[in-house]
Amino acid sequence: MTDSLTNNIKHLFKALAAQGVTDYVISPGSRTTPIALLLAEYATYTESINVYVDVDERSAAFFALGIAKATVHPVVLIATSGTAIANWMPAVVEAQISNVPLILLSTDRPAELQHIGTQQTIDQTKLFGTQVKRFVAITLQDAHPDVTAYIDYEVQEIVRLAAATPAGPVHLNLPLRKPLMPVLGEPWPDVAAQTNVAAIEQIDLTALTAMITDKKVVILAGPLQKTVNVKLLQELAATKRFPIIADVLANVRGVAGVVNGIELLLQTEVIDDTLVPDIVIRLGSTPVSARVMTWVQDHTVAQIVVGKATVGKDYKRQISRQLHVDENVFLQALLASDVRANQEYLAEFSALGQQVTKLMSSADHLNEITTVYAMRKAVSNSAIFVANSMPIRDMDNFFVPDHAVTVMANRGANGIDGTESTALGVATQFDQTYLITGDLTFFHDMNGLMMAKQYQLNLTVVVVNNDGGSIFSFLPQANAKDYFEEMFGTPLGLNVEKVANLYDATYHHPHTVQALEALIMQPMPGLNIIEITSDRAQNVLDHRQIQNELQALYND
Amino acid sequence: MTDSLTNNIKHLFKALAAQGVTDYVISPGSRTTPIALLLAEYATYTESINVYVDVDERSAAFFALGIAKATVHPVVLIATSGTAIANWMPAVVEAQISNVPLILLSTDRPAELQHIGTQQTIDQTKLFGTQVKRFVAITLQDAHPDVTAYIDYEVQEIVRLAAATPAGPVHLNLPLRKPLMPVLGEPWPDVAAQTNVAAIEQIDLTALTAMITDKKVVILAGPLQKTVNVKLLQELAATKRFPIIADVLANVRGVAGVVNGIELLLQTEVIDDTLVPDIVIRLGSTPVSARVMTWVQDHTVAQIVVGKATVGKDYKRQISRQLHVDENVFLQALLASDVRANQEYLAEFSALGQQVTKLMSSADHLNEITTVYAMRKAVSNSAIFVANSMPIRDMDNFFVPDHAVTVMANRGANGIDGTESTALGVATQFDQTYLITGDLTFFHDMNGLMMAKQYQLNLTVVVVNNDGGSIFSFLPQANAKDYFEEMFGTPLGLNVEKVANLYDATYHHPHTVQALEALIMQPMPGLNIIEITSDRAQNVLDHRQIQNELQALYND
Repeated sequence: MTDSLTNNIKHLFKALAAQGVTDYVISPGSRTTPIALLLAEYATYTESINVYVDVDERSAAFFALGIAKATVHPVVLIATSGTAIANWMPAVVEAQISNVPLILLSTDRPAELQHIGTQQTIDQTKLFGTQVKRFVAITLQDAHPDVTAYIDYEVQEIVRLAAATPAGPVHLNLPLRKPLMPVLGEPWPDVAAQTNVAAIEQIDLTALTAMITDKKVVILAGPLQKTVNVKLLQELAATKRFPIIADVLANVRGVAGVVNGIELLLQTEVIDDTLVPDIVIRLGSTPVSARVMTWVQDHTVAQIVVGKATVGKDYKRQISRQLHVDENVFLQALLASDVRANQEYLAEFSALGQQVTKLMSSADHLNEITTVYAMRKAVSNSAIFVANSMPIRDMDNFFVPDHAVTVMANRGANGIDGTESTALGVATQFDQTYLITGDLTFFHDMNGLMMAKQYQLNLTVVVVNNDGGSIFSFLPQANAKDYFEEMFGTPLGLNVEKVANLYDATYHHPHTVQALEALIMQPMPGLNIIEITSDRAQNVLDHRQIQNELQALYND
Repeated sequence: MTDSLTNNIKHLFKALAAQGVTDYVISPGSRTTPIALLLAEYATYTESINVYVDVDERSAAFFALGIAKATVHPVVLIATSGTAIANWMPAVVEAQISNVPLILLSTDRPAELQHIGTQQTIDQTKLFGTQVKRFVAITLQDAHPDVTAYIDYEVQEIVRLAAATPAGPVHLNLPLRKPLMPVLGEPWPDVAAQTNVAAIEQIDLTALTAMITDKKVVILAGPLQKTVNVKLLQELAATKRFPIIADVLANVRGVAGVVNGIELLLQTEVIDDTLVPDIVIRLGSTPVSARVMTWVQDHTVAQIVVGKATVGKDYKRQISRQLHVDENVFLQALLASDVRANQEYLAEFSALGQQVTKLMSSADHLNEITTVYAMRKAVSNSAIFVANSMPIRDMDNFFVPDHAVTVMANRGANGIDGTESTALGVATQFDQTYLITGDLTFFHDMNGLMMAKQYQLNLTVVVVNNDGGSIFSFLPQANAKDYFEEMFGTPLGLNVEKVANLYDATYHHPHTVQALEALIMQPMPGLNIIEITSDRAQNVLDHRQIQNELQALYND
């Protein structure tokens, strides 16, 4: 005879499964004992269930975030009571802003042990405050049938809430009394799935067509959720002749009509006033390029923002119209309409992005820019996870893939934390994944590399090692020479080869673009670390040089 | 002419200094630029200011916690906006429960960039929720003299609030607009210190004396703040003949009348019913030994709890009287009174603790127990920081110092996170500091070791490597053999020598008790890592053996 604890936990897992949840990331702990053991039992007889164990809860949360980003499905995080779950905070914040569905499942001490000095007991109620979409506490040790029915319902409800646009984290807190051992080896119950009718969205294009026909219209594609069909976007460029300014995280680059390197083009002023659009149609979240937003704002261009997750995020306060519809519904409607764009505009605009690529192809010295450019050789259908700070900016300027790859980053809160862990979470879903990162970011989440070893994941990490924080060299504080190195440069003297050695990674140290590209273009099993030696001062000069070259082209 | 930003930040630092704040731990970031540069300038002309730079914010927060634990003074943590400060959460939770004063100084985007999709902008308002004692936001870019006067006052107020019993973290959020460069090289203002009259506490002992005279009275000293004068406690044992059951974190062991190893004594039942006290006087927070609390509860012993920080923390609901007075005031009053304890009781009780020590001194095989016992050889006036999980339990049972050392641990929320960082924070205040930890905990905060290298701190880390989480082998889930290793054992295969190599530490691998003791008893400059090879199954047997030996002594 099974007890209420065992029965209710089984209902919990079955309710999660009924809503299609398959991925679990758990950190070991004592209070989670019944959850962990029943999850392990469940996984032995259910092939679709994937369980990952990660001892560092901060890494675990970013690892789960990576899986959820790659699968666009809610992932369950499990950890024990106390500071363990406080380590989730950075990834929860990122998930909240970048709309990634996470189900935070924390165990807790029971009510009678709260606030009275019990060991390892913190106030977990609403610990994540406004960062989660819902906080629910459920008592599992209760045999009343209403409780079991409530678990069947409420657990499915919070999964749907996590996934509902805009997606985000939800927190389920489970107070548990001792004894904590569940009954193993007994049959599992069936839990019926709640029906969930997808909303059908419609859009009336009459007013929009009148507004944009024959105008200089640009589609500004920021970072896009994987749910957006980028083929529709590319078709729009090809048939309706709208230029698409494509953020590296929009994943539409490498097609005619798609403009890359917008930050560099604006910085060097090779985009002149004749190219200022009348209307910008924005898809996706805030672009990597801050300059493109300022440019649109400075010219008071009309903006139409499309999407259910991104509407309401208008930090330049320039939006003329907000279309709270699914991006795919909008793109299909636009394709089916008789809207047409200004025909000359496309050719002029898209030529510019190609210039950046052309300059790149003649560069032959291995540096931070050509490293990023070399990533175009990534094997087909791989994923490239890009660290924040310099790598994401360089990728946005200089990256155009040779063939289909998925580029991802944590561009919600833009933190440098949890980078390896998120990349490895992504790596669970691809045959080959790359991470491109600076040395400081690499160091921050170095612990995350343990998961590559534990789960034999294929990740190739490209570490651009300039011994410190290179982005600060581009900022005004670089002139405060007395304090700069201590406060911003922060050289760590990290020996990347020793890190590779510690984590049983294969270490590579190419010195030419050709050697790097040769490494990138082949699938590499397991954990590989490619160190690129760089220099912060030289990197500033390298960036200046490419700006000068681009300007020279247009002054001729 | 200085601007309002520069002027107000100078007032901020001067107000902190006026309340005696000297220690700063900062993580680099862009939004913190003016704070970082002015702090660096301030430190160049003020000798008492100590600035530590730590790139991993989670480590930084625990490092600050370590300094604050060792100095019993508020320490300032500084980081940039976004997920950076979310990494502080675990240490904030620990500081809140264990009453450590921390001043969280976060920079933020200005109000007009909030909630509208600006890059790297999260909702920082009350991010730490109920974990901090106060949340304040101050706009520094305001030239109005009232703002400057408010900074002088409010900053001093929050320092005092952080330090006031029960001490804890406070959060000061500083929204900053660009441009962020301050004016350097200009004179600094003077800020007057607010007067702060210390409260004088009195206690009337008449009723208490009547209550406890001639009774079997035990003083149960849990983890004590460094502000408690342990000499008074030892004097009480010597003159009034109260046995003191001393938690390892009470730091009163090694003196006649002080009982150690209470968990083991109760577990083996060598403490019989004749030793059940009539009254327990409790000082300090929740003891490491859970069994001692259960024992007191099971015999419904009257409990008197003393202290301003610990009153109200009564998770066994057995407290008869709460004395909300300073511990030192109470101890002095008790010493000055004519209270006397039951005279035979002391001798009987304290003989038991000595038995545990005696057993230890004959043990000659290097294992987890003799490793902990070897820590008694730690050099005089050093600090020993103890990791949670098994090391703290073993230290509580088996550690008695040969001479004065300070033993510390994070026993608020009892997390395994941030261990190296806290130990290194402590190491800033001692010539020699030790850390004793298991391999899983060691791995969790491995990044924290970078601070030893950056600041040439003297830390000797004793890593008991049993390849996984050994505490779970003592719990019921050890019997769930099918799932145990994956879910709880979690072997990492961590190569400790390679870690030492990565962090430029000196590596030692002793195989005998004598070799370990020889390493412990000498001061070792820089970072030293001593690996003790252990085995989880054998460790369970070792613990059983010592229990058997103890029981055999009393059955004879």
